[in-house]
Amino acid sequence: MKSRSLLLRPIGRVHSDIKERWQAPRQGRREKTAAQLEIFHEYTEAIEDVQKGDTLWVLLWFHKADRELLKVHPRGDLRKPLKGVFSTRSPSRPNPIALSLIDVIEVSGNWLKVRGLDAVHGTPVIDIKPYIEENDRP
Amino acid sequence: MKSRSLLLRPIGRVHSDIKERWQAPRQGRREKTAAQLEIFHEYTEAIEDVQKGDTLWVLLWFHKADRELLKVHPRGDLRKPLKGVFSTRSPSRPNPIALSLIDVIEVSGNWLKVRGLDAVHGTPVIDIKPYIEENDRP
Repeated sequence: MKSRSLLLRPIGRVHSDIKERWQAPRQGRREKTAAQLEIFHEYTEAIEDVQKGDTLWVLLWFHKADRELLKVHPRGDLRKPLKGVFSTRSPSRPNPIALSLIDVIEVSGNWLKVRGLDAVHGTPVIDIKPYIEENDRP
Repeated sequence: MKSRSLLLRPIGRVHSDIKERWQAPRQGRREKTAAQLEIFHEYTEAIEDVQKGDTLWVLLWFHKADRELLKVHPRGDLRKPLKGVFSTRSPSRPNPIALSLIDVIEVSGNWLKVRGLDAVHGTPVIDIKPYIEENDRP
């Protein structure tokens, strides 16, 4: 089990005005600008029930992250002591999966216009799930 | 981008009394029994700041799920109409990643005793993140 590698299939990609990682704002989800998720055609059936107004989890694959870092300065602030990456939301981690809660603003075919992402243009989308209060709130 | 496959590295695995999938209870997170997460030694540094009392997201890889299903009957109930998997939390999805909010009950070396999982023994763990209210609440 330990040595077996697991293969992800990108299901779509992010289209946004953020072209470089340094442009990505660090801010709460409500202030984030809109972005588009293009879902690849082979997965159209899987998004057929996604609707405007839905609150969803989007899982992205931060393909430019450093997967070897196990400790980071939280939020890149060098004055803060190093912290294990599993106690941070740093994109640098063994599996650079980002978890973002988004609001669906518009659905047009296999494109979803969403608010709540701050991902670089071209970032692979790997999963979409509904937010379920019973499971997802402490 | 579309055709490139992405490789996950298991960072640990679940130890639980649930040996078969049909035994896994469908219930709210508060009623769930305790399980252990074994974090592999090469990632020990990354969990060094995880503490008893933390509320964390655990991302698991449901290695026994059917990755080809794009529509399912919600909660396996055949009376309910088929729904696109991205509008459900079904383990069947192109990338069978499960998202669970857990409470850390005890930390012992690279083992975490947690409450909130209902995963089969041996399920690969692929990521751990802190819950951050500002980002994770609608």
